[in-house]
Amino acid sequence: MMQSENSVEDSLHIRKLEVTDKEKGFIELLRQLTVCDSVSDERFKERFEEIAKYGDDHCICVIEDVRLGKIVATGSVFIEKKFVRNCGKAGHIEDVVVDSSARGMQLGKRIVEYLAHHAHSMGCYKVILDCTEENRPFYEKCGFKKKEIQMVKYFV
Amino acid sequence: MMQSENSVEDSLHIRKLEVTDKEKGFIELLRQLTVCDSVSDERFKERFEEIAKYGDDHCICVIEDVRLGKIVATGSVFIEKKFVRNCGKAGHIEDVVVDSSARGMQLGKRIVEYLAHHAHSMGCYKVILDCTEENRPFYEKCGFKKKEIQMVKYFV
Repeated sequence: MMQSENSVEDSLHIRKLEVTDKEKGFIELLRQLTVCDSVSDERFKERFEEIAKYGDDHCICVIEDVRLGKIVATGSVFIEKKFVRNCGKAGHIEDVVVDSSARGMQLGKRIVEYLAHHAHSMGCYKVILDCTEENRPFYEKCGFKKKEIQMVKYFV
Repeated sequence: MMQSENSVEDSLHIRKLEVTDKEKGFIELLRQLTVCDSVSDERFKERFEEIAKYGDDHCICVIEDVRLGKIVATGSVFIEKKFVRNCGKAGHIEDVVVDSSARGMQLGKRIVEYLAHHAHSMGCYKVILDCTEENRPFYEKCGFKKKEIQMVKYFV
């Protein structure tokens, strides 16, 4: 049976990460972004709770395909409290990924818009992220502009 | 009376931000970095305490010239808890600035090394920051490499 586009899109629900999302392929999804070995249920729960302590200052959102009970997109934002900008706040978007089977449905855009909206609603004066030059056009469509360069130092 | 180079350097103490640093020119220093209007004592204390709640997950360091009772350099790092990299952590360095009167004494390098060391000691697998292309050679001297580009969306 063919499903109409509408019914597919209706089944894609955006919401905050829940602890039970580990069973819905959340870690496997992250593995499409970077190194992420299997994590024990205990370790997952522990990290989930560490992040939950920050409340709305650290928000991880997911899109679940409820037909499949599968997490198909995610991204996070945390709110940094500053002294500059008159004790302003900045949102930092991290770890945005869309499942390879679910591309072309604007899910990345929905994730980024959800996270940017969250940062705005938390009183941030800006939201920033780092990405490859290749992903720049995508983020420009989401309303971002290139500003600086990212520097990194690895410890491992 | 001329002071020797040694005695000047001996008077430059690096440590974590204290709530009394507002009286030592901390806000005026930040103003050399970006917009930072005058902040009331109450607002400063409130923000100081909000950040202090994060404990070692958000560290602001300063260098005080104890001869003058003046803050001459600062920078911050916060520790982001992730699920990727096997529930890894990443350090984010922000708001590094050295007083215009205190340049050429490697204070920026001391600040960045202090913050990177803090991130490492907290178990981060990497520490990142965003900077202008102009500041790239400075951060390369601190052991950083260019990786990605920074994108920004302003709300104000």
